[in-house]
Amino acid sequence: MTVSLEQARIIIAQTFKKGSELGLKPLSVVVLDAGGHVQAFEREDGAAPGRFAIAHGKAYGAVMLGMAGRAQMARAEAQAYFMSAVNGAFGGAVVPVPGGILLRDDQDAVIGAVGITGDTSDNDVLAGLAGIAAAGLKAEA
Amino acid sequence: MTVSLEQARIIIAQTFKKGSELGLKPLSVVVLDAGGHVQAFEREDGAAPGRFAIAHGKAYGAVMLGMAGRAQMARAEAQAYFMSAVNGAFGGAVVPVPGGILLRDDQDAVIGAVGITGDTSDNDVLAGLAGIAAAGLKAEA
Amino acid sequence: MTVSLEQARIIIAQTFKKGSELGLKPLSVVVLDAGGHVQAFEREDGAAPGRFAIAHGKAYGAVMLGMAGRAQMARAEAQAYFMSAVNGAFGGAVVPVPGGILLRDDQDAVIGAVGITGDTSDNDVLAGLAGIAAAGLKAEA
Amino acid sequence: MTVSLEQARIIIAQTFKKGSELGLKPLSVVVLDAGGHVQAFEREDGAAPGRFAIAHGKAYGAVMLGMAGRAQMARAEAQAYFMSAVNGAFGGAVVPVPGGILLRDDQDAVIGAVGITGDTSDNDVLAGLAGIAAAGLKAEA
Repeated sequence: MTVSLEQARIIIAQTFKKGSELGLKPLSVVVLDAGGHVQAFEREDGAAPGRFAIAHGKAYGAVMLGMAGRAQMARAEAQAYFMSAVNGAFGGAVVPVPGGILLRDDQDAVIGAVGITGDTSDNDVLAGLAGIAAAGLKAEA
Repeated sequence: MTVSLEQARIIIAQTFKKGSELGLKPLSVVVLDAGGHVQAFEREDGAAPGRFAIAHGKAYGAVMLGMAGRAQMARAEAQAYFMSAVNGAFGGAVVPVPGGILLRDDQDAVIGAVGITGDTSDNDVLAGLAGIAAAGLKAEA
Repeated sequence: MTVSLEQARIIIAQTFKKGSELGLKPLSVVVLDAGGHVQAFEREDGAAPGRFAIAHGKAYGAVMLGMAGRAQMARAEAQAYFMSAVNGAFGGAVVPVPGGILLRDDQDAVIGAVGITGDTSDNDVLAGLAGIAAAGLKAEA
Repeated sequence: MTVSLEQARIIIAQTFKKGSELGLKPLSVVVLDAGGHVQAFEREDGAAPGRFAIAHGKAYGAVMLGMAGRAQMARAEAQAYFMSAVNGAFGGAVVPVPGGILLRDDQDAVIGAVGITGDTSDNDVLAGLAGIAAAGLKAEA
């Protein structure tokens, strides 16, 4: 099972809505499927041009490692050379900070990941969790 | 000036609508801004996982070279080593076939590009042109 | 839905068995999941050291493009620069020849791919089809 | 001399068996030959999609440097820039942590390496050592 386009749209729209309510800077949100492939992405007007790669890197590391952004950051802080090596193994595409959120189904299987970027990492997570909740999915930040 | 997220959403939604009317296979559509950076992307359920890279490659070549997909294909057929060398210069990210469509404003300035993939290249273009027309923008396929 | 490790083991073992019956050279077989990620791989003793990359490239292109090896080869022969560009977009990992076989479930959804290498491409396919049939899955070569 | 496919199968099967007995998370195990090339790999159902790259990186560094995972980690902790530079030289493919285990024959010659990932690095090693012992080979973790 993997996240659907309809679920991805809800996640993105509701993440932006929450960001707007919280007065956050323009956000960018990617939804990856269970294999780490892009299902949907949107970048709000005014966001920096490079935001796709950051959003993607947060979500990609989460789904490929089965480890959400906060856990990746903890590992990077405890053992920097390990996350650096992991990134080498994944072509430099992993961004190990909060804002990479795993999506799980009712059986706790990973069905994709969401990457949010634009404000502080903690605010990115807040907005993303609201989006995922609106889609009725379980999140691991 | 560059394409807005709102315009990108219309382009994507109306491209899918046209694809559905024509009975095409599941499509994937990316919209890049005037700098070649991803503004929005959606992949319909059932599309192959690698479709982001193909859609992106069609649009990326268009905006980076200021040359739409059909013109790139003509160049590739006349002078394959040239497009191959261009791709070396752009990290292999260019896919020089129809389905990479330039977006122009009223003064004919390039404000972004659309990449469509999933069916035949010609059908991809048909669907994309409908999406761009619905957003009120000028297209060069 | 994606191919299971148990199914992958059957596919590999029965592909080798068929290769042995046909008197083929030592084979290498990879099974990728629906996201293009390695589920299982075996290389028979005596096979050349680089066979993982070839087997992987055949299966990877199949699952990422939703297009089996024979169709990829036809496209490469008709439009070499297109498959070359596709390969750029996928980091050079695609090997577009027979021996990349799609795995489909009862609803015809792609649930993975098998890559076989070691003998002629046609013999690679013959052996792989026997392995896939033994696992009770539908194949598209 | 190099590890055989039959030995690789025993190593993988018995590593999984030990992991199951210890209640570890789903494991992924690669066996590389004396030249650092993939001989066999299996990923248990439920493991994250990116586990091949991690397992491979642990074993690849071991065999290419003739230095097991624990020794690589010690070096990375003492001299991070050195292991980072080593990784540059090997295309980013080295993951220098426990779980990369050298295989030696009776004369202590390196005949391959095993990479295990999925649980903690120390548990990965425990399971891998059991697998290698079952194959009657000497291990250096």
